[in-house]
Amino acid sequence: MTVQDRARQTRKPRILCIGMPVRDLIFRVAGVPERGNKDPADGFAEIAGGNSPNAAISIARLGGDVLLSGPVGGLNAASNITIVDQFRGEGIDTGGLVEVDGVVTPISSILIDPSGERTIVTFRDPKLWTVNLPSSDVLLDGCDAILAENRCAEFATDICAEAHRRGIPVVIDADRVMSLREGLLQVSSHIIFSAEALRATAGESDEVAALRKVARLTPALLGVTSGAKGAIWLAEHGNPRHMPAFPVHTVDTLGAGDAFHGAFTLATAEGQPLEQAMRFASATAALKCTRFGGAFGSPQRAEVEDFLAANAPVTAS
Amino acid sequence: MTVQDRARQTRKPRILCIGMPVRDLIFRVAGVPERGNKDPADGFAEIAGGNSPNAAISIARLGGDVLLSGPVGGLNAASNITIVDQFRGEGIDTGGLVEVDGVVTPISSILIDPSGERTIVTFRDPKLWTVNLPSSDVLLDGCDAILAENRCAEFATDICAEAHRRGIPVVIDADRVMSLREGLLQVSSHIIFSAEALRATAGESDEVAALRKVARLTPALLGVTSGAKGAIWLAEHGNPRHMPAFPVHTVDTLGAGDAFHGAFTLATAEGQPLEQAMRFASATAALKCTRFGGAFGSPQRAEVEDFLAANAPVTAS
Repeated sequence: MTVQDRARQTRKPRILCIGMPVRDLIFRVAGVPERGNKDPADGFAEIAGGNSPNAAISIARLGGDVLLSGPVGGLNAASNITIVDQFRGEGIDTGGLVEVDGVVTPISSILIDPSGERTIVTFRDPKLWTVNLPSSDVLLDGCDAILAENRCAEFATDICAEAHRRGIPVVIDADRVMSLREGLLQVSSHIIFSAEALRATAGESDEVAALRKVARLTPALLGVTSGAKGAIWLAEHGNPRHMPAFPVHTVDTLGAGDAFHGAFTLATAEGQPLEQAMRFASATAALKCTRFGGAFGSPQRAEVEDFLAANAPVTAS
Repeated sequence: MTVQDRARQTRKPRILCIGMPVRDLIFRVAGVPERGNKDPADGFAEIAGGNSPNAAISIARLGGDVLLSGPVGGLNAASNITIVDQFRGEGIDTGGLVEVDGVVTPISSILIDPSGERTIVTFRDPKLWTVNLPSSDVLLDGCDAILAENRCAEFATDICAEAHRRGIPVVIDADRVMSLREGLLQVSSHIIFSAEALRATAGESDEVAALRKVARLTPALLGVTSGAKGAIWLAEHGNPRHMPAFPVHTVDTLGAGDAFHGAFTLATAEGQPLEQAMRFASATAALKCTRFGGAFGSPQRAEVEDFLAANAPVTAS
């Protein structure tokens, strides 16, 4: 056992999640309303959300020690109490959240129809990008890996660069289109795209071709998640590997991609080999899909390990 | 000058507004999203809303003394602070609001597209209807008129009946379908329908025929508002009167019907003759339509009086 292995056993890996918390307002509806209509909803919940914050919940449940950092609005301090309390209830350190004066916390209206399909409108005030995060000394203290949303590049690149310089893994959740001149490309160890963001970034509809196009611009490991189609990543020499998703009865996909990113980042911080980390992430996302409640449907560590033990190994091809 | 006239000059008319406050979450969007999409909004506001509460704002700005009564959710006390503060900021007495444990305050997701059209999804927890309002002694103290939403019939009928017995005008805002056996039909002095609610209630697409059908079941004055088409009511012997809407440049119709109901109720409490009350209500609603912000775009008394003086009288036909 190496010294590093021993250290890992004696404390939880500490993951810095950089993202934008969102107030997710979830309405259960018969369908998306026609323009101009007044429709009733027969269910409602307000929960904490956002890509990296959702991943933070997954990581905490899988046994990681999470520091969450990013901007929240200062205008609606009363409403923020609810979401910050929800993160704290998961054991997440919210000490890296910074209030931005004069703006509201990002907010999503999420309509869920009887088939489980969701339709989302999100408002993020442009002033949120003026946030100044705490210093790298504070955020990187004891940090074993970073997970950052690419939409936060404007205020997260410096800290990612410093972590990269120190040899800390930096995983990017690329859920929106990225410039091919994006600075994060040079300071990250892993970039996992959503299928839509990858296509939009590379201007390629074929996912492997798109990954190869981006690969010319970054030393990072590149991957993409495509829901039920599974995950693809580029191995040595640009050879694609495909891992199918575990087949499960899906009732709620909200936060499933985020669970994948969170689990993958934790597994990487734990030193799991790449394919094993992808399987761990895939199992976490699959279990999340079987439960309602966005990220609050994310599984505990023991459930993921039982699931992996009980299910025929899904092997990358 | 009668004693009543003198009393009216020495104090503001006191109006009891019974309704369900709603948290209106307003997103400015390019259009209603396709099912399954994630769309951005480029503007957002959270304001206090709800039919009778909106009318309460209009009445307060027109010089009435308003007591607002109805249920609010007890689960989201922090979020309620915002909307209750907004009503108080308008000088409204919110002492009649009652928290219902275990539920959230009604909430609407309102998408506004570039043409000003709005698409609404609203959640109201069924348990809100179990609310017990304060006693009639409290609510009717000094009361000169009631404005009540017909959706509140389950908990508002008793107080309306007591007011009706005392000769206090009871105006019903019928914004949702009403049973033809509805108790409010017997204890109200005026019922003003929305066009959709009238058609659904009477099962008649012709508005005059629909009003006449309902008229067989109630002694109340019956009317209907149809946005830009104006208002219709039944005069003696079921003869319809039509008052066209004032032509204005409309930028936001949210809360316009509520402004009409509020102004009409105040005018009735002030003893304005029926046609004059309808004109006053119509002018208030027209001015509201020229301004963004839902009920917070409702005009002050002086503006309505200037508008009525400056515009060629719209006469009922």
